[in-house]
Amino acid sequence: MAEEKLTPQAENFSEWYNQIVQKADLADYAPVRGCMVVKPYGWALWENIQAALDRRFKATGHVNAAFPMLIPMSFLEKEKEHVEGFSPELAVVTHGGGEKLEEPLVVRPTSETIIGYMYSKWVKSYRDLPILINQWGSVVRWEMRTRLFLRTAEFYWQEGHTVHATSDEAMAETRLMLDTYRDFAVEDGAVPVIPGRKSESEKFAGAVSSWTIEGMMRDTRALQSGTSHYFGQNFARAFDIKFLDQNNELQFAYTTSWGLSTRFVGAIIMTHGDDQGLMLPPRLAPIQVVIVPIYRDDAEHSLVMPVVERLQKELGESFRVHVDLRDGLTPGFKFNDWEMRGVPLRIEVGPKDVEKHSVALARRDRPGKAGKSFVPQEGLAQTVGETLKEIQAALLARAIAFRDEHIFAVRSYADLTDAVQKGWALAWWCGSPECEAKVKEDTKATTRCIPLDQESGDGLCVVCGKPAREKIYFARAY
Amino acid sequence: MAEEKLTPQAENFSEWYNQIVQKADLADYAPVRGCMVVKPYGWALWENIQAALDRRFKATGHVNAAFPMLIPMSFLEKEKEHVEGFSPELAVVTHGGGEKLEEPLVVRPTSETIIGYMYSKWVKSYRDLPILINQWGSVVRWEMRTRLFLRTAEFYWQEGHTVHATSDEAMAETRLMLDTYRDFAVEDGAVPVIPGRKSESEKFAGAVSSWTIEGMMRDTRALQSGTSHYFGQNFARAFDIKFLDQNNELQFAYTTSWGLSTRFVGAIIMTHGDDQGLMLPPRLAPIQVVIVPIYRDDAEHSLVMPVVERLQKELGESFRVHVDLRDGLTPGFKFNDWEMRGVPLRIEVGPKDVEKHSVALARRDRPGKAGKSFVPQEGLAQTVGETLKEIQAALLARAIAFRDEHIFAVRSYADLTDAVQKGWALAWWCGSPECEAKVKEDTKATTRCIPLDQESGDGLCVVCGKPAREKIYFARAY
Repeated sequence: MAEEKLTPQAENFSEWYNQIVQKADLADYAPVRGCMVVKPYGWALWENIQAALDRRFKATGHVNAAFPMLIPMSFLEKEKEHVEGFSPELAVVTHGGGEKLEEPLVVRPTSETIIGYMYSKWVKSYRDLPILINQWGSVVRWEMRTRLFLRTAEFYWQEGHTVHATSDEAMAETRLMLDTYRDFAVEDGAVPVIPGRKSESEKFAGAVSSWTIEGMMRDTRALQSGTSHYFGQNFARAFDIKFLDQNNELQFAYTTSWGLSTRFVGAIIMTHGDDQGLMLPPRLAPIQVVIVPIYRDDAEHSLVMPVVERLQKELGESFRVHVDLRDGLTPGFKFNDWEMRGVPLRIEVGPKDVEKHSVALARRDRPGKAGKSFVPQEGLAQTVGETLKEIQAALLARAIAFRDEHIFAVRSYADLTDAVQKGWALAWWCGSPECEAKVKEDTKATTRCIPLDQESGDGLCVVCGKPAREKIYFARAY
Repeated sequence: MAEEKLTPQAENFSEWYNQIVQKADLADYAPVRGCMVVKPYGWALWENIQAALDRRFKATGHVNAAFPMLIPMSFLEKEKEHVEGFSPELAVVTHGGGEKLEEPLVVRPTSETIIGYMYSKWVKSYRDLPILINQWGSVVRWEMRTRLFLRTAEFYWQEGHTVHATSDEAMAETRLMLDTYRDFAVEDGAVPVIPGRKSESEKFAGAVSSWTIEGMMRDTRALQSGTSHYFGQNFARAFDIKFLDQNNELQFAYTTSWGLSTRFVGAIIMTHGDDQGLMLPPRLAPIQVVIVPIYRDDAEHSLVMPVVERLQKELGESFRVHVDLRDGLTPGFKFNDWEMRGVPLRIEVGPKDVEKHSVALARRDRPGKAGKSFVPQEGLAQTVGETLKEIQAALLARAIAFRDEHIFAVRSYADLTDAVQKGWALAWWCGSPECEAKVKEDTKATTRCIPLDQESGDGLCVVCGKPAREKIYFARAY
């Protein structure tokens, strides 16, 4: 079992991350530069993330559709900032069916352009608005430095693209989806993200404003975990999305887009994991409860298995349950293995438990004896349900505590440079890109977001000392 | 409403198909050669197909994962027949991140090669087997003649890829998944497909044997609606997938793959649709019940809407219900519109219905008065549930009757050439590719499958007159 030990987080967080992704069987490196293979356990986690988001999208009136993965190169060139932002990262198809193409196609890095083109065909009148479409799929960005889940050449995501008659409606949509991401991250992921607006220099290529949820990982770095963009009429003008309003006048529409990707798997790993492995929030865990039968011989096996099978059936009605039937492995090995994979709750059933009509419960979030208890088999489903809720709440509370311990409200530049070495700095900022650039140059920390929650009043920019109206977070980021 | 009329099937089936796909709002042409945009209504149908299949895959022990969409060109070249089959259809990425790639990548036309490469890394021992992985995604094949859903350059599908220790297990998997497709097609799609084996000349590039479900469309053409392939050790040898068996000897593994695509949407359209539009099987319909409120003025509106809202809530607990609240459209227009979109059951609620505590039910599968009845509001959920089941069964019965009327058991070549002009021919076949080629040359009909259900005995080949052991279907196909 020695080979299962992870490099401790405190020793080398980056190495810990790389190991855990593979040891918990989430993903593997692909034989294609910068790409990953998402393995079944990792994909099951992503499927649960998808379901949790998709439910929220549909509840707010959105529908899914599918647009082509290949986009004519000329489409990207229609929005100047957009093409500047994405052209260095494009994968280009130059040949199809054995012949050179007249116009190269790019593998979509994001779909504003092709979807904008279709919307210009579909939108005629105010009666056609709003259009509230989401797409699940993958995109390709030719990244130079890649890491599994955090930054891969191909990644999986959803991208919502909406069209509205007014600026207010489009902005309301942008904020609604930001709040949808925040709600999902906090309630399902137990990732206490901070929602806010990106600075001008950090916003999406082509957006009027970009909004983000930022999570703090356990090495205190920030991870941008979902974004929502307000485009004003930028893309409507570039793609000629016009409608006849109620006065029969032709108007450009207002558009938005918003996306959350497999990067969020990275957020879960780095928000909750510890030196024993993953720690998955029960609401998203592919396996919520693992049952490990304990026996030394055939007699004990026949004693234990009927109880295990009955509990599997009972619990399976309400929870995602797995029974570890693997032969030739010790209970200790199995315990470590399921801890590595972050299963929230383990149930052990041995001959003594059968005798006492009880089971042993072990919580992943409380290692060792502190997390172990013996509970009656009767009413076990209720006990498990309550315990999973407790674990979900405990993970969130732990992450909030960690986050809040590592956020420093700073008033001087010296304090800022100190703070971003050990966490995030929250500081007054005048809004100038020069001040952002200086912080980045001096500390490698970037502005993460101007949080929605702002104290009233104003102050002095932590960098230049000029008047400032908003506070912003500075942090080193993934 | 004149513009809503479809070209009748009998006049021009192909034109009927092209129109219905657009008029029922299923899909649109993309600005990329041969690609389609699947619109929200079409995608909702595909999501229901996905859910129905995914449930079956998981119930038979399969798990989902994701492999890269870009594959090194050299991978395809490792299996000789495979590269010959797919190289004319490849989309090739030659540039990435602004630079020419050392080795071109192809956008996956299917994923046997890259998955085979990963499996060779993952499989070490018989304990690692079987591997039962499925992937949902899209693939690109540079088709010359494309039609929405039936043949598009990019299409959406699932592809299962499994590895087994023995030939018997791999063949059992191949047959299990064929039967899974058959069960899905018949039970959920009400598409009475015929399962069978492909001839040598029609099998998948690289397979030992290919199995198919073939559906008969309402123009009597065959549509290959799902395939399951047994590869023997072909891909294991090409990709070096080896394992230590229980005797500690190194063996090549046996692999399979199986896929069903958005083509199946075409199967549903062409199996059930009529001159009024789509006719969707209730189990897959995005909207199972549409409620149309009927009113002439505000007074009637206030009378009708509380009942509509109550019924929406009651029925919404068990069914996919939509209320047509569109203003400024006549009930007649709405009825036609929902018939075009194939909604199985329509409920009309007007002032008289409110008074009588009843509603009008209209079945999509029985046009006009024959399908209309007036039923009490009390117990409506039960009535709707029963009616949807009846519609599902009626669609299947109608499709079986149509299929069986258009299958002709033929014994002479003259009868064969005649039969394939008006349906399918079932005939003894000696197994030689020359006989297949002659039929294709003379009639444009190809061999569709050697059905699983074979009468015992043998006969004489319908083409050459030599002894034959199996019967095969000949038909013109999509």
